[in-house]
Amino acid sequence: MKLEFLGTGAGVPSKQRNVTGIALKLLDERNAVWLFDCGEGTQQQILNTSVRPGKIEKIFITHLHGDHIFGLPGLLSSRSFQGGDTTLTIYGPKGIKAFVETSLKVSESRLSYPLDFVEIEEGGVIFKDQQFEVICLPLDHKIASFGYRIEESDHQGELLVDKLRELNIPSGPIYGKIKNRQKVVLADGREIDGADFVGPDQKGRTVTILGDTRSHANIAKLAADADVLVHESTFNHAEAQKARAYYHSTSTQAATVAKEQGVGRLLLTHISSRYLGKAVYEMEKEAKNIFPNTKIVKDFDIIDIPFDKEARQHD
Amino acid sequence: MKLEFLGTGAGVPSKQRNVTGIALKLLDERNAVWLFDCGEGTQQQILNTSVRPGKIEKIFITHLHGDHIFGLPGLLSSRSFQGGDTTLTIYGPKGIKAFVETSLKVSESRLSYPLDFVEIEEGGVIFKDQQFEVICLPLDHKIASFGYRIEESDHQGELLVDKLRELNIPSGPIYGKIKNRQKVVLADGREIDGADFVGPDQKGRTVTILGDTRSHANIAKLAADADVLVHESTFNHAEAQKARAYYHSTSTQAATVAKEQGVGRLLLTHISSRYLGKAVYEMEKEAKNIFPNTKIVKDFDIIDIPFDKEARQHD
Repeated sequence: MKLEFLGTGAGVPSKQRNVTGIALKLLDERNAVWLFDCGEGTQQQILNTSVRPGKIEKIFITHLHGDHIFGLPGLLSSRSFQGGDTTLTIYGPKGIKAFVETSLKVSESRLSYPLDFVEIEEGGVIFKDQQFEVICLPLDHKIASFGYRIEESDHQGELLVDKLRELNIPSGPIYGKIKNRQKVVLADGREIDGADFVGPDQKGRTVTILGDTRSHANIAKLAADADVLVHESTFNHAEAQKARAYYHSTSTQAATVAKEQGVGRLLLTHISSRYLGKAVYEMEKEAKNIFPNTKIVKDFDIIDIPFDKEARQHD
Repeated sequence: MKLEFLGTGAGVPSKQRNVTGIALKLLDERNAVWLFDCGEGTQQQILNTSVRPGKIEKIFITHLHGDHIFGLPGLLSSRSFQGGDTTLTIYGPKGIKAFVETSLKVSESRLSYPLDFVEIEEGGVIFKDQQFEVICLPLDHKIASFGYRIEESDHQGELLVDKLRELNIPSGPIYGKIKNRQKVVLADGREIDGADFVGPDQKGRTVTILGDTRSHANIAKLAADADVLVHESTFNHAEAQKARAYYHSTSTQAATVAKEQGVGRLLLTHISSRYLGKAVYEMEKEAKNIFPNTKIVKDFDIIDIPFDKEARQHD
């Protein structure tokens, strides 16, 4: 599980930062990539990465501002041009379907794969399978904006093979039952409890990715105990008034949430183009003063989210 | 008058070539830029040029395929974000208005300037003022596609001031009448014919920019005697069958038109990403064998179109 940032700027592209696009790479987990937002030029950014459009299984749109959606029609078309044939599902606020369908219709683009839409009105659990659950809640922006919390299922505890061997319990189909913590009777008559031969479950990872927003109570719900929180940071602390006026957040607001919610790591993105060089460093520093494990991401940054809990919390 | 190529690829962006966008820079002529097509990422390409979005006065769309229009909503929004306040007019096939308006509406983008649309159904003269006339004719593509011929008005001949001085004709308001080739009576009673004191008119420049197309009779009408012909060249000569099947042109078809129509210079663009390095060189060579003054343009190439007729025809 890795996050790759395709665009980390706010509003309009600049030479330093493209507009928003975030790839959650789940290649080991499900041989798929989930995309969060798709600003103009996302497909061009992807050309400089190892992301293959055919692997994109889901696209989650946080809100419909142009810097988060104008790259969608082109990416969908290119995925088709390159022979993508698996279903792609787009989740996003009401209106995303009209935008995509109008774009594809006007341009007479016929896709080589099925395209599904899930338009979100109130939020809640919008996706769930054996591996992942995605929860979505509204935030506070000028336009309907959502945050996504991606929860990986817990990994079942490992079978304690050495312990089984010590007791001369021979391997075979019975190991499957033991791993499922069932009580079993062995061929020699012994009764054992599978639960005694399985290590503890390991907690799945949680990643939270927010759309543009001002401070809002739902941020805490989405971010609680997340391993990684991706939070917008359009402005620095000094510009808090401007942030509020434009329905955006500051670096220190994001850091405060991260601290209060006990997240593992805070990644700041959606950085206004007014901040360059030293100003970005200063912005990161003021956030780190509140929550040390903070990083302002740049385009093409790749953030590993290791399964091992010990490794997760640190750089 | 300069052409600046913002994207010279076909269908999908590649690392080498972005999708189509062509700026006709009319800074000396009218302090404006006209854009021909606006594929995704055009605004990002512009960041690497001297083009200012606020100066873009008109956008001409050749056809509605995604690689020619998906950059429009973003460019229009950024032009607004940067404070553009002059009217922008978009010319293009029927459907362009629905695409732009849906994109702006869904994203709740409010522009800081008036946006006009001229939807073309049959073509003809679609714009004319004292300086320029733009003629547009349909071509042969899978979707409605147009070519544009931009004709500059002739420049009025220069007043032959030395000749007037030789005859002791004093300067003053009368020079205006003479420049207009009127007959005037001087203060000393002499009658002169203004036409004798004005040099010949100089022919204005003509630039022809075609949309995607197969061979079609209208290409000749649009290209006749043009100083510069911008012609798509998606395929090379060997792939003529493929070009026909996909409603595109080859390098040698474009060169043949240039030769037959007596154009000054041929610029080949919309190059398929299958051609790289030496293959592009070979494609240019086969066109040059037919029409020597041919160039396959690259992203960010700037082509000067000087007023001086002598300088126009040569590299």
